[in-house]
Amino acid sequence: MNLHITNILKDLKNDDFDAYLLTQFTNVEYISNYKPTSFAFCIIKENPIIYASGMDMELAMNNSSIEVREYESFDVMIGDLKEDGVKRLAIEPSLPYSTYIKFKDDFTIDSKTYIDKQRMIKTPEEIKKISQATNIAQKSFLQLDILNNENTEKEVAFDLVRYMIENGAQKESFDTIVTSGANSSLPHAIPESKKLEKPILIDWGCIFEGYCSDNTRTMVYTERQQEIWDIVAEAHYKAIKSIKPGIKCCEVDKVARDIISDYGYGDKFIHSTGHSLGLDIHETPGFSTRDETIIEEGMVITVEPGIYLQGEFGIRLEDTVSISRKGNVIGDLPLDIG
Amino acid sequence: MNLHITNILKDLKNDDFDAYLLTQFTNVEYISNYKPTSFAFCIIKENPIIYASGMDMELAMNNSSIEVREYESFDVMIGDLKEDGVKRLAIEPSLPYSTYIKFKDDFTIDSKTYIDKQRMIKTPEEIKKISQATNIAQKSFLQLDILNNENTEKEVAFDLVRYMIENGAQKESFDTIVTSGANSSLPHAIPESKKLEKPILIDWGCIFEGYCSDNTRTMVYTERQQEIWDIVAEAHYKAIKSIKPGIKCCEVDKVARDIISDYGYGDKFIHSTGHSLGLDIHETPGFSTRDETIIEEGMVITVEPGIYLQGEFGIRLEDTVSISRKGNVIGDLPLDIG
Repeated sequence: MNLHITNILKDLKNDDFDAYLLTQFTNVEYISNYKPTSFAFCIIKENPIIYASGMDMELAMNNSSIEVREYESFDVMIGDLKEDGVKRLAIEPSLPYSTYIKFKDDFTIDSKTYIDKQRMIKTPEEIKKISQATNIAQKSFLQLDILNNENTEKEVAFDLVRYMIENGAQKESFDTIVTSGANSSLPHAIPESKKLEKPILIDWGCIFEGYCSDNTRTMVYTERQQEIWDIVAEAHYKAIKSIKPGIKCCEVDKVARDIISDYGYGDKFIHSTGHSLGLDIHETPGFSTRDETIIEEGMVITVEPGIYLQGEFGIRLEDTVSISRKGNVIGDLPLDIG
Repeated sequence: MNLHITNILKDLKNDDFDAYLLTQFTNVEYISNYKPTSFAFCIIKENPIIYASGMDMELAMNNSSIEVREYESFDVMIGDLKEDGVKRLAIEPSLPYSTYIKFKDDFTIDSKTYIDKQRMIKTPEEIKKISQATNIAQKSFLQLDILNNENTEKEVAFDLVRYMIENGAQKESFDTIVTSGANSSLPHAIPESKKLEKPILIDWGCIFEGYCSDNTRTMVYTERQQEIWDIVAEAHYKAIKSIKPGIKCCEVDKVARDIISDYGYGDKFIHSTGHSLGLDIHETPGFSTRDETIIEEGMVITVEPGIYLQGEFGIRLEDTVSISRKGNVIGDLPLDIG
């Protein structure tokens, strides 16, 4: 039985639960090495089991480290659980309401973050995969020759994805953002069919062996753009320097936010300072104003302050930090590409 | 006020609810034309409102046809709702448990499919967008020159996505499947870095103006492969011919399943016969053994029977049917590409 399961069994025992239901694909993958493609119910108990869909059976049998049974119906699954003595069932916070109500009459239910708690702390092997993803993504970015680029936003985004795949990535880790000119004030802008304007903001990453990378760079061209870039770069640098085990996530957010606020742009920094990543591109904890999680060694969290001036432009800079006794930035791409 | 909202207000009144909470991005987009990029709470009531995240405010203000307010906290939002006299709140079946529990103490809650019910029936404008997406995807497929292709699965998948984007698509509508040889027995196979083997199964689609397309073709090369292909093609053809308003979705599934079963491969057809599509690649209803939904004009549903022989190969053929008085296949790509 793997360590992840052993840990969950301890948590269940402490909280007096009999089983833990996982349905999120990356949670099932984390536990069993099998990533569902349609749906699956993974139930962690003394004898853990995955109910896989018929169309996933071959894949599940090939990859899963724990027992797999073909899903027939809710009734059969609930019957099995009752037969096994399960009365108190822990679920993921993300479980859809429609699934919750199918279990709620037969079990005492509460949501627990046992799995998130484990996924927060990456093993050296997981960190290595995130580093490899980051290296592929950064190398691909440099192939773009962005400064001599006559292409459209869409074409640049497309080239970047192609380079990442050619360099060994499975795919992009989220929809690649290549935005320029006034559109860059939208944090999640969608690349358009127009030639690059200035500044150019690129937010990109890839997946390598299941693990995500995430970076952002903004290339600036005017004094005004440079002025804002410098503020974001200072917030980015000082937030990264502040990261260490033992302090709270919100304290890192405060470092970045205070710098940007001191320059008078506090209300233009319209998102959190960063998020964890791993099998998913957004994991917990994050560097946000409300996240009181204590930073621990093994966490991998991005730092991505930004300033968004509606009608003008936006600037964001993002790196991913692997937290050891002092945080270490993953990858070696300079902040200043210009 | 748009028709979608008027219809929901009627449903709410009939069922004695005061408001309907939508959080699924495509549901919010369907109602308001604003597609969230981080999170949003869209509340349909006499005065509908969207609570958008700070980072989405510019986008939401630009695109939303209904009032937008910046989200501050659950407490503020719940306070607003109570002030508005909301006591009985309808939610989407997909709402995460963690969101449900934040509302459950202040409101009487039940899940309703008002929005799915409307999204089932596409307007002529929506059907046109699905057709345009399909045309782009099919034209791009023909550019592949698949029969003279010396590339790897990954390269072919990549070329197909590039052609779709060059031809005007926003992006692929799901992870493009290019699989070949024995791997084709996995319905959701991931393209590999190996040269194409035989048979070749390609399942692909793109998004045009928000709307998805979905097709599958399998190119066969041996007598055994052709034998199985012929069975799947018969199931595909006869299922499509059987589609008409007034019958149940499960009856169309039965047509395809019975043909495949009669040839002795019933247990090798390991998924449903088809699914609706639109703003999402998988919508309701579907042609499955249990879906009793009555087929109506305006539905757009795929037909995709398949036979999967583990260790040998898999065959699947998929087209998308726009349901009028007699179903009409969208697009004009021949089934037999060889």
